[in-house]
Amino acid sequence: MLDQTLAYAREHREPFLKDLFDLLSIPSVSAQPAHTKDVRMAALWLAEHLRNIGLKAEVKETSGHPVVYGEWLGAGPNKPTLLIYGHYDVQPAEPFELWTTDAFTPTVRDGYIFARGSCDNKGQHMAHVKAIESYLKGSGALPVNVKFLIEGEEEIGGPSLTAFIEANTELLACDGIMISDGSLLAMDQPTLTYGLRGIVRLEVTVRALDKDVHSGMYGGNVQNAAVALAQIIAKLKDEQGRVTVPGFYDEVRTVDAAELAELERVPYTAKEVLSETGAMRLFGDPDFTLPERKGSRPTLEINGMWSGYTGPGGKTIIPATAHAKITCRMVPFMTPHKIAQQVAAYIQQVAPAATEVRVELFDGTPGLLIERESPFVTAAAQAAQETYGNPPIFELEGGSIPVVGDFQKLLGKPIILLGFGLNDDNVHSPNERYALACWEKGIEASIRFLAKL
Amino acid sequence: MLDQTLAYAREHREPFLKDLFDLLSIPSVSAQPAHTKDVRMAALWLAEHLRNIGLKAEVKETSGHPVVYGEWLGAGPNKPTLLIYGHYDVQPAEPFELWTTDAFTPTVRDGYIFARGSCDNKGQHMAHVKAIESYLKGSGALPVNVKFLIEGEEEIGGPSLTAFIEANTELLACDGIMISDGSLLAMDQPTLTYGLRGIVRLEVTVRALDKDVHSGMYGGNVQNAAVALAQIIAKLKDEQGRVTVPGFYDEVRTVDAAELAELERVPYTAKEVLSETGAMRLFGDPDFTLPERKGSRPTLEINGMWSGYTGPGGKTIIPATAHAKITCRMVPFMTPHKIAQQVAAYIQQVAPAATEVRVELFDGTPGLLIERESPFVTAAAQAAQETYGNPPIFELEGGSIPVVGDFQKLLGKPIILLGFGLNDDNVHSPNERYALACWEKGIEASIRFLAKL
Repeated sequence: MLDQTLAYAREHREPFLKDLFDLLSIPSVSAQPAHTKDVRMAALWLAEHLRNIGLKAEVKETSGHPVVYGEWLGAGPNKPTLLIYGHYDVQPAEPFELWTTDAFTPTVRDGYIFARGSCDNKGQHMAHVKAIESYLKGSGALPVNVKFLIEGEEEIGGPSLTAFIEANTELLACDGIMISDGSLLAMDQPTLTYGLRGIVRLEVTVRALDKDVHSGMYGGNVQNAAVALAQIIAKLKDEQGRVTVPGFYDEVRTVDAAELAELERVPYTAKEVLSETGAMRLFGDPDFTLPERKGSRPTLEINGMWSGYTGPGGKTIIPATAHAKITCRMVPFMTPHKIAQQVAAYIQQVAPAATEVRVELFDGTPGLLIERESPFVTAAAQAAQETYGNPPIFELEGGSIPVVGDFQKLLGKPIILLGFGLNDDNVHSPNERYALACWEKGIEASIRFLAKL
Repeated sequence: MLDQTLAYAREHREPFLKDLFDLLSIPSVSAQPAHTKDVRMAALWLAEHLRNIGLKAEVKETSGHPVVYGEWLGAGPNKPTLLIYGHYDVQPAEPFELWTTDAFTPTVRDGYIFARGSCDNKGQHMAHVKAIESYLKGSGALPVNVKFLIEGEEEIGGPSLTAFIEANTELLACDGIMISDGSLLAMDQPTLTYGLRGIVRLEVTVRALDKDVHSGMYGGNVQNAAVALAQIIAKLKDEQGRVTVPGFYDEVRTVDAAELAELERVPYTAKEVLSETGAMRLFGDPDFTLPERKGSRPTLEINGMWSGYTGPGGKTIIPATAHAKITCRMVPFMTPHKIAQQVAAYIQQVAPAATEVRVELFDGTPGLLIERESPFVTAAAQAAQETYGNPPIFELEGGSIPVVGDFQKLLGKPIILLGFGLNDDNVHSPNERYALACWEKGIEASIRFLAKL
């Protein structure tokens, strides 16, 4: 059954890639209201595609973007059931002018598929879809029961998925949950993630005036919103990048020596960070190492800020308002709401004179750890070793997958975090890409994993 | 002659206003390349209009936007010649959504003309044009010779006008220069400006990375360009608004007690500043009074800043670059280039770790004082008193009129700065306006002034 299935996948590389391209062509940007219809179109496409390969599938409504649910339960009640999670929404593609080829016209170049969502996450959940298609079409059946839950709000913090899972724990009942939404450390070095950072988002608006005013007539006598916002932001981090919000590090978990030693094994160094980001040198808290700062320390970042005139040439105004988008990444077991409130309170405390500062808090996701000893994790580790040639390294991931916490709490089953991408895939950046080899090995890893359950 | 001319102006309010509206409808935004053709169209319209009312006029090319030159020399060589300066270019109208009616569809509401350029400066130089039309059509002649110089680059720091004046000192030869590009203190309180602040512009670019990157994967290990820029800006001014750039105040002229006493006579108080700007309270160097801070102290303002993602919702990136537009206002006799270099050097000095900071310097205009005792100023003071009901107050203006320095140096004749607008005309802001009463009294003041030369 395994050989037949693997053979089917290898023989259908061309149509499989075409299907992925169809999905990548849909600009399902969940953050932008102008793309709401495209988000729905991606859901409809996926449900139809799951039906076409032999699953029962439908688009399920939520209070926000819909969820795609699919299932094949033909292995019977004596076999385990695997729930596979993914997200079909993507990050905004701006700034468009930095893309070599159009973000939503998938293009193969130098062995990579270039498109927004190619790695994050369409190319990864579609690898599981194609693994299952290979079983059903190549061997006529799957060795286990399979459910799909593919959401459309991952990139906006998943506001309605929690309620959906809460309301559908029976539908989603399973024995283990597979999530592929991350990276290998190298083409021959798979990774199993056992910890994720959480995230919480804030938006700051500083108002100094009712309108932008002439900098000659009023300069010297009124506050400047851009300067005031800059003074606030400057107080959030020190010169070495440490967050200066009081209490920010209070809940941070201590990493013991054994765990630290394993983290240090991760062959991910300054060289990779510099070449992947173009940074001139590393920048971070000097009391911690690179892998510690990635997975076991919280962060505060300005994701965007704007104020006044930003067009060509000059405009001699004093800006009335200034805005910043902030996210904090939290390690296990920091509390998103508490952190957001601490940051908001500190911003109000340091707000410069003659300003009115508003801080909006959005829902967050806590950081978390997952169990490393389940038979599902063991099966994934073996499948990864057979596919990529080396046993996986266990890693703390810097990013967040909000749904993992919900799965832990609401479904209570083992979770497997096995990523199919690479660290330099420009996820969330222009020219996002996904190696053809990652795509093909992802399908094989999924096929092998299913055979071991 | 005077009565006949005033009567002509009063009888022709309607067609005069229509002519102004025609000019206001042309979006002659000099800073924006997309409007280059509109800028030229405004010049062509003005030259044609001057010919229609009886002047010799033409559009003269420069290395940038063209200049409109017009003359009527029929008073003969024994009469003085007045040069009238204005600018037909306007500030960008963004943010458009804050305009109640379209910026380039002039609309009368509550006794005001609303349009970009209505006050700054089309409505003011057109008042002189209509005064001259009233003489020529109402009385058949002018009491003096008149020349017009109306430029198209005032709002972008006038890069090519200096060279034009240098090359045309004979054409522009005159006995006095009238500039109306400012405000009355109130409808019954005219002002004669005897000092102007200079201005110099800089643009800062902070680069931390080659591209925006995922804040989960890299957060903690790389510098954030938005945070770095904020830290730079925060160091440019202290918490009370004083500029902290070393040497910034070194060249500032001391205002003596007599001058200070006169400045304090200006009936321009916190109340006006607060109602005109919507500021919640005054904000500025506590060692100086409001009129001192407006006219006799230099400033540094952020006119705009931007970095990262500024669209709807969130985007979990670390921004690669961040940008700020800066202008400094300088009092007499500070040196623009020196100030710009001091600011640029300080920015480099305080640049945070792991950043590459570029500071672009643009040409500036020095601050200056003008003589208060010429017969031209006396004539203007009398005309103003007769038109507005009170003798003018002498004031230091906070804004800059770059050409005044060139006129002082290259033509060497007395300058009159008599503004026709009001301080709350939203110059450089959304909903720029110009009171109908200002428009009509401006024409009358110009008619009376010409009669007194």
